[in-house]
Amino acid sequence: MPLGSPPFGRIAIAGVGLIGGSLAGALRQIWPSIEILALDRPEVLADATARRLIDRPARTIVELSDADLIVLALPVPEILKILPAIAALPTTPVVTDVGSTKRRICQVAADAGLARFVGGHPVAGSERPGLTSARPDLFDGQPWLLINTPSSPDDPVARVEKLVRSIGAVPHRIDAETHDRTMAYVSHLPQLLAVALINTAGAAIGESGLRFSGRAFGEMTRLAASPAELWEGILATNADYVADAAAAIAAELPSQAARLEMTRWIDETFHRAGEWRERLSHARAAEPR
Amino acid sequence: MPLGSPPFGRIAIAGVGLIGGSLAGALRQIWPSIEILALDRPEVLADATARRLIDRPARTIVELSDADLIVLALPVPEILKILPAIAALPTTPVVTDVGSTKRRICQVAADAGLARFVGGHPVAGSERPGLTSARPDLFDGQPWLLINTPSSPDDPVARVEKLVRSIGAVPHRIDAETHDRTMAYVSHLPQLLAVALINTAGAAIGESGLRFSGRAFGEMTRLAASPAELWEGILATNADYVADAAAAIAAELPSQAARLEMTRWIDETFHRAGEWRERLSHARAAEPR
Repeated sequence: MPLGSPPFGRIAIAGVGLIGGSLAGALRQIWPSIEILALDRPEVLADATARRLIDRPARTIVELSDADLIVLALPVPEILKILPAIAALPTTPVVTDVGSTKRRICQVAADAGLARFVGGHPVAGSERPGLTSARPDLFDGQPWLLINTPSSPDDPVARVEKLVRSIGAVPHRIDAETHDRTMAYVSHLPQLLAVALINTAGAAIGESGLRFSGRAFGEMTRLAASPAELWEGILATNADYVADAAAAIAAELPSQAARLEMTRWIDETFHRAGEWRERLSHARAAEPR
Repeated sequence: MPLGSPPFGRIAIAGVGLIGGSLAGALRQIWPSIEILALDRPEVLADATARRLIDRPARTIVELSDADLIVLALPVPEILKILPAIAALPTTPVVTDVGSTKRRICQVAADAGLARFVGGHPVAGSERPGLTSARPDLFDGQPWLLINTPSSPDDPVARVEKLVRSIGAVPHRIDAETHDRTMAYVSHLPQLLAVALINTAGAAIGESGLRFSGRAFGEMTRLAASPAELWEGILATNADYVADAAAAIAAELPSQAARLEMTRWIDETFHRAGEWRERLSHARAAEPR
């Protein structure tokens, strides 16, 4: 529970789905004094109001200019579309977003002339989108990446950093290029693999074979239930790094030539994998909270 | 809770690790009257005795011939090694195994002259091996595949089937060829992907990048912690189908040529994947218990 005053007194959230709804819920718990406005379809706003997640529904973008912070919790293509309209507001507060890729979004924000834009990405989610999947502890202990921008007098990155740390996330500053390349490997490639695994297995052995799968297969294909619409925007704005990552893992798999050399392949790869798993545990355990 | 008499009065388990220990625990709960002998290293047997999982430790293979059923709960190479010794026992009871591949094991059992051998494979496990990870509900609701063998007068497959159903598993009869091909896709390929994913990501972005991973990456790489020793035996006895599966998924991933066509790739693959996930749920939900 943070002491002192909140870094923003009034926050507008555009998009009250899984991420926006979880953010509203977390803010409510930690900073009950923050006023929360929200922009979304009327039925979503009604639901969010009924859940006491928001104080004031907004019907137009202009109404958001009241806020000290606007959070764009929308799919990537919608973030790209709304940025120029946000930049055209009579007064522009600090603006941040939660999009899963950052190069394109930060470029569009800069091109639109948004001076106090802080690209952001909470590394948290679920294969089930929407407000009904939102939960206030979604970000707890998870990384929340913030794109380094040239410093301005009131240091908007530091204020957003304070906010995300207050709700339990672990903020890290990173540049957009490194962000997108990293995400290609830890987020986008796993998504592609889940999709490719169930398609490959389904095509090869059919439903009668799939019923002989165990818990691990269910876990490895869970992400395949994610909505394609969301992923189109993510992958389309990171296609270069994603294609690199896909090519890299294809090269890492045992080839037809390795049929008779499976033991050597295992010796080479499994031990390396075990070491990386250890380092993954260490890397995550060493996180400052 | 089954009624009537147990299908076997005395069961010998060779190998009291994750699978053998879980089996002993499950049998204890359901059929307290079954006497359980076990063969393993002395310290493992002492541990299993202390946990009240077994009634009688055995020090030699010969002592197992007392049993009505011998369960070989060992890694694949050790099953292959012990089969001729089991076949050479003065009296041979029904013998079954829990190896993850079945063609080679069934062939070796047949070559050794084991008439009442029932190849078996409980599709259940953990990336953490050993008796300390054993739990009596490990098989609950999970498939337990049994290889169809030419019928013999006392129908050993039906007796093993009754046993595995009594402890909550879902038995299915299958031929060894179909078994191994199916497992290449639902078990062995996921294992390879977990290993390849963490190696690819580790090499590309290092530990500093891995710490920005979320829950999905941890889940998709969990299997990479599995012991390489266990997997050597599994993959070496299924190298042909595993190499086919690896080649199939490599072809399913977006290629370098798809950099500019990511949207089309997603349209083609994600919807197909969502449909297979649905069918996976249906296939598993429709299981007879």
